[in-house]
This record gives sequence, structure tokens and C-alpha cells, in this order.
Amino acid sequence: MTTYTEYLWFNTDKRRDLIRITPSLEAILGKSGVREGLMLVSAMHITAGIIVNDDEQGLHRDIMGWIERVAPADPSYEHHRTGEDNGDAHLKRILVHHQAILPITEGRLDLGPWEQCFYAEFDGRRRKRVVVKIMGE
Amino acid sequence: MTTYTEYLWFNTDKRRDLIRITPSLEAILGKSGVREGLMLVSAMHITAGIIVNDDEQGLHRDIMGWIERVAPADPSYEHHRTGEDNGDAHLKRILVHHQAILPITEGRLDLGPWEQCFYAEFDGRRRKRVVVKIMGE
Amino acid sequence: MTTYTEYLWFNTDKRRDLIRITPSLEAILGKSGVREGLMLVSAMHITAGIIVNDDEQGLHRDIMGWIERVAPADPSYEHHRTGEDNGDAHLKRILVHHQAILPITEGRLDLGPWEQCFYAEFDGRRRKRVVVKIMGE
Repeated sequence: MTTYTEYLWFNTDKRRDLIRITPSLEAILGKSGVREGLMLVSAMHITAGIIVNDDEQGLHRDIMGWIERVAPADPSYEHHRTGEDNGDAHLKRILVHHQAILPITEGRLDLGPWEQCFYAEFDGRRRKRVVVKIMGE
Repeated sequence: MTTYTEYLWFNTDKRRDLIRITPSLEAILGKSGVREGLMLVSAMHITAGIIVNDDEQGLHRDIMGWIERVAPADPSYEHHRTGEDNGDAHLKRILVHHQAILPITEGRLDLGPWEQCFYAEFDGRRRKRVVVKIMGE
Repeated sequence: MTTYTEYLWFNTDKRRDLIRITPSLEAILGKSGVREGLMLVSAMHITAGIIVNDDEQGLHRDIMGWIERVAPADPSYEHHRTGEDNGDAHLKRILVHHQAILPITEGRLDLGPWEQCFYAEFDGRRRKRVVVKIMGE
């Protein structure tokens, strides 16, 4: 059994963003040498998530607009009494979930034809990490 | 270590549906011979998801009604400028999440007494796949 | 390859609660002896979930208030015709997701600086379980 771990770093210009990371994940898979197994992709900061969906710009605007409607920014969150202003970003992470598992089959990410993996940033403009952990053989 | 991979195919009559797949997953587990490990169940099309919940028909109508209220069909999604009409189905997949991991203990799916695994179709009437990947020993 | 399985039991005084379980998970990891791998943490009852987020009490009230707004208690759920009154708890579990995978690196849970794992109870005051399954080496 092999395990292989890397961390992806992000520092987005915008407060909220969707960044396609499938190519980075494929590169990490290549370095691991794993042919069959599972890859965990998990946002380590509690104001970011992982989404596996279509790579279409209009849809991305739909997704970010929908997330804002379901988990809106609101000055009245109690979390803001700590001095933070990102209560909504914590909720947005819960809504989209903070991680995904990508299957690895015959040395490749075993994704559907339109599945792409995205880092979903909800409180950016600072350095944040995603852990990528592969287990297999 | 053993890995074992199969794909489940769906082609629902209805556009939206919940289909119980626990028996299919148990059959795949049996073929794998794995006694201890993890089973990934992941919808490969970006307009479908996986739900682990109760097998009760009234609840299923509650679930599908709730999903429609939180992530409603809407002609105005930008994604529809590509010619698609299924923007809501992409959002519904994000809401329910597109995958689950089922633990395998002593050769069986280690589920709670009422846990059943469902394929959640949000844009059906076409052939779509779920990947089932087992890793264990 | 090693697998190690334990079950955490809960019986909350309140109907809804967030309980930090990271220390319990670290103790289970210690007993497993696993240095590199994955830990599945999955609520086995269909009215509870798992959340990985910040350990801040104001935020916890924000989270529980938000969950109630998005998936509210409502006497009119069809599920209640079975005699149950917890339809909302099933929906809340879907909203937050019922499980998380924690990576294990160099013998420790490989979490971000503020990531803590919580059991999210939506219909408590009874004995309920979470399965913790470790796979690695």
C-alpha cells in the first residue's frame, strides 16, 4: 500500500472564487505512482470548500449566486462579535461540503466526462491550503 | 490490499427520482471479497447525487420537495445560454453532495439500522453512471 | 494495511446540539497505531450529521440558526404521517452531509489550524451512533 500527501496553496485576488484544480490533482497523482486507489481533496481552512461539477463560466456564476442566496453575507451573525466578518463563508463551506474523494483507476482520476474538481474560496485574499492525500497501490 | 471497481448505469423514466441502490452495492461488495475497508459511491454525471437516508416514501417526497425549494428550477440561470435547461440540477447535486463512503466491516456494509443508499437523479431520461470503488482487504 | 473500527455513542440532553469529537477521534487514532491513512467519521442515524468547522460558540449558534432557516421544522412533512415528527432532521442531515474523511499524516489527524470535527445532532435525547473507520498503515 502506498500513501502520498501534498498540499495546494491558494491566495485568491477576489474574496470569492472557483478555481479548477483537476490539472494539479492529476500532476500529484502522477508523482504518487498509484494506479488503483482513492484521492482525498479537502479544504483545510473553514471558509473554503471543494466542488466537483461542470467547467462552464455561466454555471459558475449561477453556483456562486445560489450559494449567496442560500447562505448570505449578513452583518448580524454572532460570529462577528469575535471581530470576524466572514460568518457567511463558514456556512457556505458547510453548504457545498469541504471535501471530495476522487477514485483512481488504471493510473488516472476516474471522473465522469464533465466532472472537474474546483477549489471554492469564500473568504480569500490570504494564503490557504488544501490537503491532497492518495491511498492505493 | 484489494481494490475493486464497478459502474452502475441508470436511465430513469422520470426527470427526477430517488433510486435505492443498497442491494446493488451489497452485490458488488460480495464480488470484491473485501472484509474490511471502504466503498466509494460517486455519481459521475454533474446533475445527480448520492443520499444516505431512510427508505420511506413520504420522506422521499419531503426530500425532493425540499431540494426543489432550496435549489429551484429557474429559466434565468446563465448556464441555460449554452442551450441547457438543467442549471437547477447542477445546484441540487451540490446541495445533497455527489458521493458517499460506506464502511465495510466483517464483510458487510456497516450501515445504521435505517441507513439506505440512494441514487438521486435530477436530470434523467438518459444513460448516466455511478462509480463504485472498494478498497480494503 | 491496517483497518480499525470503533463506534461513538451519543445521547444528547437537547434535541439539537453540536458536540466536538476531535479528542475522541484522536484517541481512536492512537489505539489504531496507523501513521498514514484515512479516517471515515459517519453518523449512522439518519437524523444526525458530521461538520468540520471552527470551534466558536457564536458561530455554532449561527450554524444551527442557518440550518433551521434552510431546512425548517414543519408539521406538514409527509414523513410525519408515519407517526414521526422529525422530518426536518432528515433534511438537516442532507444539508450538512452525514460524514467526513479526516486524513492521517505522520500519526496525527492532518487538520487545518481551526478545523474541529463535530457531531451534529438534529433529533437527540436517545442513543445514537457514529462509526469511525481507519484504513492505513
